[in-house]
Amino acid sequence: MSPAAPSELRLQALPGIPIVEPGQDLAELVRAAADRAGIALEGGVLVVCQKIVSKAENRLVALADVEPSEEAQQIAAEDDKDPRHVEVVLRESARIVRRGHGVLICETRHGFVCANAGVDLSNAPGPDIAVLLPLDPDASAERLRADLARRGARRVGVIVSDTFGRPWREGLVDAAIGSAGLAPIEDARGRADLTGRELVVTTTATADQLAAAAGLLMGKDSGTPAIWITGIVPEGGGRIRDTLRDPEMNLFR
Amino acid sequence: MSPAAPSELRLQALPGIPIVEPGQDLAELVRAAADRAGIALEGGVLVVCQKIVSKAENRLVALADVEPSEEAQQIAAEDDKDPRHVEVVLRESARIVRRGHGVLICETRHGFVCANAGVDLSNAPGPDIAVLLPLDPDASAERLRADLARRGARRVGVIVSDTFGRPWREGLVDAAIGSAGLAPIEDARGRADLTGRELVVTTTATADQLAAAAGLLMGKDSGTPAIWITGIVPEGGGRIRDTLRDPEMNLFR
Repeated sequence: MSPAAPSELRLQALPGIPIVEPGQDLAELVRAAADRAGIALEGGVLVVCQKIVSKAENRLVALADVEPSEEAQQIAAEDDKDPRHVEVVLRESARIVRRGHGVLICETRHGFVCANAGVDLSNAPGPDIAVLLPLDPDASAERLRADLARRGARRVGVIVSDTFGRPWREGLVDAAIGSAGLAPIEDARGRADLTGRELVVTTTATADQLAAAAGLLMGKDSGTPAIWITGIVPEGGGRIRDTLRDPEMNLFR
Repeated sequence: MSPAAPSELRLQALPGIPIVEPGQDLAELVRAAADRAGIALEGGVLVVCQKIVSKAENRLVALADVEPSEEAQQIAAEDDKDPRHVEVVLRESARIVRRGHGVLICETRHGFVCANAGVDLSNAPGPDIAVLLPLDPDASAERLRADLARRGARRVGVIVSDTFGRPWREGLVDAAIGSAGLAPIEDARGRADLTGRELVVTTTATADQLAAAAGLLMGKDSGTPAIWITGIVPEGGGRIRDTLRDPEMNLFR
């Protein structure tokens, strides 16, 4: 990101992106949507929701094909859930972080801590189909960025976003699970505040703030899974995976 | 918030707001800055950072006047901190949630869980002055909203934002600590997703997403503590305090 904060930002939902099918070319869908809106994909950040990335990458599981383990059956019985859904959640999890009040907070194999390991049944292609997180969301972002560049996009950062709960607050916010072509965290340490005092702990999670901003335009029922943000020129690079807190520094294991 | 997600958002930093002094009229500073930028404060959301609200409300403590308790002295010695700063943090805290790696995660008297109970020494009016959170940030937002309305603002939602760490991810994001004139959480439960399946757990923390978006324009060294957002028409109301998770439902006490 540019070192100074921008003075203006504009966010636009890319219109008319259809429900995505496995194997579809996301870059082509995004480019066509940008064309329709008269948007040139140059010097900005594209935020796409995880759901369309996962569908394009065929990260789908038909629950009919899932044999629930004993553990999954037990959790499902206690929490009044579909044991096949719980089984998929367990398979996607490195560990269960907390369980209670019918909620399963998991650490995914990537290291994200979220409800149900990000396995979702809403906006799925069918009533008994679970959508999993992308295998490597940073790689998904990088691939989309490269595919867009081949179609003429220039200086475009890409963020794959997903919706997260927070431990101490109700309501969900969007955060970045993958990024490419931008620095996910802006480090202001060593710079001075307005009074000349050195800023010692200010590291802004720029990618997460961009994802949250884009989330305002991504109503779960509005069919706008791709948001174009201008006013901020993406610079640098870095993976979201590398911004997850080191477990040894984590006070909330 | 309006039920459908907006298709476009615009964020503008209000220029030329000076370093705020205790007792200053924030609404007047915001109105003058909007005037300078040719912005009419009608039908949008104003996000102001906590720091200028706290300064205007004189939520300042001179460390020279603080007598550290034994507990504060012990923590300060172990964590290599200023015992007077730690004392102020303890006074602002209902409890210490976690302590480790030199970090003090506190639950404030309002119920926010954050580092150092939100007590900050950066961008303070002097080298040994601590800035505390507003006593009642929702009331601060409501007061600013009423003061702006008296100066001609119409249909303006107000958010007071502050910067928060997250347990599992590096980097800080801005979130709402006070709000007025808008629904801080948009409840989509009962609505259908794109496939007609009922959305059961989707409650978007709209105020937090707006705060995070505004945070992109609030560099800690850029002197832009007030951001104007259009494209989303504020509706309804509600306090941030009421969106903090019930401790009984909290898996991360």
